Amino acid sequence: MTIQRIDPGPILSEAVVHNGVAYLAGQVSSSGVREVGSQTREVLAAIDALLARVGTDKTRVLRAQVFLADMADYNIMNTVWEQWVAPGHAPARATVQAALAKPQWKVEIVVTAALP
Amino acid sequence: MTIQRIDPGPILSEAVVHNGVAYLAGQVSSSGVREVGSQTREVLAAIDALLARVGTDKTRVLRAQVFLADMADYNIMNTVWEQWVAPGHAPARATVQAALAKPQWKVEIVVTAALP
Amino acid sequence: MTIQRIDPGPILSEAVVHNGVAYLAGQVSSSGVREVGSQTREVLAAIDALLARVGTDKTRVLRAQVFLADMADYNIMNTVWEQWVAPGHAPARATVQAALAKPQWKVEIVVTAALP
Repeated sequence: MTIQRIDPGPILSEAVVHNGVAYLAGQVSSSGVREVGSQTREVLAAIDALLARVGTDKTRVLRAQVFLADMADYNIMNTVWEQWVAPGHAPARATVQAALAKPQWKVEIVVTAALP
Repeated sequence: MTIQRIDPGPILSEAVVHNGVAYLAGQVSSSGVREVGSQTREVLAAIDALLARVGTDKTRVLRAQVFLADMADYNIMNTVWEQWVAPGHAPARATVQAALAKPQWKVEIVVTAALP
Repeated sequence: MTIQRIDPGPILSEAVVHNGVAYLAGQVSSSGVREVGSQTREVLAAIDALLARVGTDKTRVLRAQVFLADMADYNIMNTVWEQWVAPGHAPARATVQAALAKPQWKVEIVVTAALP
């Protein structure tokens, strides 16, 4: 069973595919924008781009782990999330509060997805 | 490879099944009970119910991620957990402290399980 | 589809193998050493040992979730991590801050790996 790695670096690969399942690295905002809704949109766009690179899309996301630096941002994150979810194809999800690797990051999402 | 979703909503599905593996959403207490042992029992009952709906049970749990709002609750959670585990079939587990989406929630558990 | 459990105990198994994928329990330092770099080395050695017991190795790690008790330890953890990663085979990874089950623990890592 082969393993495919997307953007393998010295620390992490952005995605790893094995046996029809894509394991994505935690995605964060890269633009420097501070507002949590904008960060969430960037995170979900990064996820969409990685899913496309491995040949799948958001209709086939199996699970998402959402980490919020401040749970007070839950509703804003959730509103952007809900606009993103493919209707009828929402993944299993858990959301908890955790400080992230850089203080400017307000949301990080870790996704597992199936390939077609 | 088909994907089966249990209780798909606009935000999340309670469970997603793919290639013989069930990915459950983070389960929390829904009754309003405050005590962590009671919450843990409710969470595990919710997991049992979801596992049954996808055709498996707690003898086939592969992994569990436990989030505790207060690590001081570790021993109480663990006692209830140990009573629940099917002897000889304990999953791989990790437990960390993290604030949860609602302040009354003291424990959230994310489970991955195999189908028979 | 059979399930193999490594060191099954009353609370958790150290690893669970199903359908060519090994799900490891969260690994922590067991020696009592306090320094985060040393703890990270111990955690990664424990992961190597478990991977060997299920017949795989660090070239086949699919995903890693790193929990740091204090994000100020990120760079030290990361330096040890980077020395450990098999070049070209870095897993998808996410790192967040979370208090761990014992106050002396500074790092816990949860790994998912493919079997050959």
